[in-house]
Amino acid sequence: MAAPPGTPVNFTRKVPDGDEMERLVCSDCGFIAYENPKIIAGAVVTHGDSILLCRRAIHPQKGRWTLPAGFLEMHETPAEGAMREAWEEARAKIEIVDLLGVYTVKRISQVQMFYRARLTDAAIEPGPESLEVGLFTLADIPWDDLAFPSVHWALGHFQEIAGRDDFAPFTNPPGWENV
Amino acid sequence: MAAPPGTPVNFTRKVPDGDEMERLVCSDCGFIAYENPKIIAGAVVTHGDSILLCRRAIHPQKGRWTLPAGFLEMHETPAEGAMREAWEEARAKIEIVDLLGVYTVKRISQVQMFYRARLTDAAIEPGPESLEVGLFTLADIPWDDLAFPSVHWALGHFQEIAGRDDFAPFTNPPGWENV
Repeated sequence: MAAPPGTPVNFTRKVPDGDEMERLVCSDCGFIAYENPKIIAGAVVTHGDSILLCRRAIHPQKGRWTLPAGFLEMHETPAEGAMREAWEEARAKIEIVDLLGVYTVKRISQVQMFYRARLTDAAIEPGPESLEVGLFTLADIPWDDLAFPSVHWALGHFQEIAGRDDFAPFTNPPGWENV
Repeated sequence: MAAPPGTPVNFTRKVPDGDEMERLVCSDCGFIAYENPKIIAGAVVTHGDSILLCRRAIHPQKGRWTLPAGFLEMHETPAEGAMREAWEEARAKIEIVDLLGVYTVKRISQVQMFYRARLTDAAIEPGPESLEVGLFTLADIPWDDLAFPSVHWALGHFQEIAGRDDFAPFTNPPGWENV
């Protein structure tokens, strides 16, 4: 039976000449598929006192609430990526305010950059990856039904620096450095 | 003649099913080599009033001075990557202070994260990628012989927030957003 699409059947892990680390190398043509950490770009988007959340239509964590965020694409700045994701997931037009947090999920080699941002147009609606989207006051946020730890962290840190603009961006909370 | 090692002879650019962007796909096995922006992690490392610089032994910009910095590897935080690079390039043991800047070089899809850091041990020496290493006061920095624009930016921003710890990290200077 053929391997499913995307399975690297011809790739083996070895240390290329002149390198010091194992890389994924094609046994046929020698192509090196370098693996490096990927960037997630996202935003805590406000409209007045409310925060934009999206209920996920896709796995993982399908059905749970998240901040608009996703993989940074080639030739984007992280801020541009956060704006694109807000549009893709919530049809939200936003402007970036500042960098709220740089979180790391080492296990899966992700660096997650969350910005503070504002809606520039009140109209929002679910994109293809969202079941629904909504604006929640802090009191109404479904804290027990959030999709990922970093969504908790970003929302918590957002509350912590409410009204300030001279803070250093947050990193993973104490005890969560090595997740 | 065989293609040189690393040449993706079996890969073509196409839009995989369920995707919206062109990806690099192996014509033989269907493996998708996703390309995403890469993170550079580096540091402005101080020892008293001096800053650590490394003269590059490798291309690009061989012979010019740079801050210790390099590609983030899998399962590292950006701060850990900056520490590793300081060791690799200058045999420098450092501690991270805070995040100085997040620069983007869109043309080559790099997100560069520079930290402020301190030497924890005065001993430094060139690693394999450096011709020499040195500690420079701001007055002595070889401004006309720096390797990359982001080295200029990081050193300039470092001066700008001397003595402060409540600043937001810098981004590309005005006019340099789209390099």
